[in-house]
Amino acid sequence: MEKKRSISMAVVKRLPKYHRYLSELLNNDVDRISSKELSEKIGFTASQIRQDLNCFGDFGQQGYGYNVRDLYNEISNILGLSKEYRTVIVGAGNIGQAIANYTRFTDIGFDLWGIFDANPKLVGIKIRDIEIKDIDELEGFIKKNNIDVGVICVPRANAQKVCDILLKGNIKGIWNFAPVDLIVPEDITIENVHLSESLMTLAYLLNEKDQEKNK
Amino acid sequence: MEKKRSISMAVVKRLPKYHRYLSELLNNDVDRISSKELSEKIGFTASQIRQDLNCFGDFGQQGYGYNVRDLYNEISNILGLSKEYRTVIVGAGNIGQAIANYTRFTDIGFDLWGIFDANPKLVGIKIRDIEIKDIDELEGFIKKNNIDVGVICVPRANAQKVCDILLKGNIKGIWNFAPVDLIVPEDITIENVHLSESLMTLAYLLNEKDQEKNK
Repeated sequence: MEKKRSISMAVVKRLPKYHRYLSELLNNDVDRISSKELSEKIGFTASQIRQDLNCFGDFGQQGYGYNVRDLYNEISNILGLSKEYRTVIVGAGNIGQAIANYTRFTDIGFDLWGIFDANPKLVGIKIRDIEIKDIDELEGFIKKNNIDVGVICVPRANAQKVCDILLKGNIKGIWNFAPVDLIVPEDITIENVHLSESLMTLAYLLNEKDQEKNK
Repeated sequence: MEKKRSISMAVVKRLPKYHRYLSELLNNDVDRISSKELSEKIGFTASQIRQDLNCFGDFGQQGYGYNVRDLYNEISNILGLSKEYRTVIVGAGNIGQAIANYTRFTDIGFDLWGIFDANPKLVGIKIRDIEIKDIDELEGFIKKNNIDVGVICVPRANAQKVCDILLKGNIKGIWNFAPVDLIVPEDITIENVHLSESLMTLAYLLNEKDQEKNK
């Protein structure tokens, strides 16, 4: 089976959705599914699905469809979900605490090793049995424990500073919730969750529908 | 100035980023900027920027660049940020509380009118001076107060049920944090924040870099 072909970012962004729907099918004991049936469930066109899934091997069989378990396993592999990443959260405010308590975090392979904050009132408090540490200990901690990933949940003004500490500690990837585009070397992986951008998109779409109605 | 031309979703998704950078320029008292300078800051190509900004009017002038204030105001207008949307949060767990405490929420025009939860232990507790109400009161509350937007922060299994209540209350838009694709009529606007999909993308990118190194 030919793998390792470079997969476009657009396909990558759709993989978690395939993963979610295939996981539901498995839970419902579905063995196989045609691209047409999958299309009706997932909302992508059947030809889009065939094209996407062709990117990583020869899964579909004419007249048979896809083997759900094989496809699920393969997508899990491609997403690297069997691996474990040692993770720290920096910033134990509302978002940081929500992320720390987010159980899917561990399921997807991100092991929470530490939580850090600059606020002395938060230092020492426990979240999911992990004591919040002072941010001054961050660099030493990530070096000593070979931490892979940092989750940045600090305010915008401190985000780059925290990012620089993570980089000094040789982190590999960053999940960034601060509304800022962090500056990092090319070999560092960043995934942003910009809540205010998502909210602005919602505002735009609501406004657009309002204007359509008033035409 | 020609407006109202239909703007593609790809451009819409970039608008909040323009908005953020232009807001920073205004804070630094920058009056005008060329597409080349903006390009260096924002990371899109200069031709991409000219093409995007052309979608909603004739802003750039050859040899002058963009008037930062005008462009900022226009993008704010297009995003509908001058409007106010009455909003309720359903689900006062970690994510719901984080969103309730998220101050940008109000800045972007989403006024928090109510917070609802099914858990009797949470009902009555106040977040930002708003008392958490029992979810049984949700439908009546949104009808009585003409609520525009519902934020869904409940677990996956309850998300569609909550969505259906919001629809019965004639909500216009939904900001959905549950890891599920909600079923709604066409005239309802949905914006999803799927944290686990974002985390899977990060896992994929980390795994891909690992494999490149091991080649």
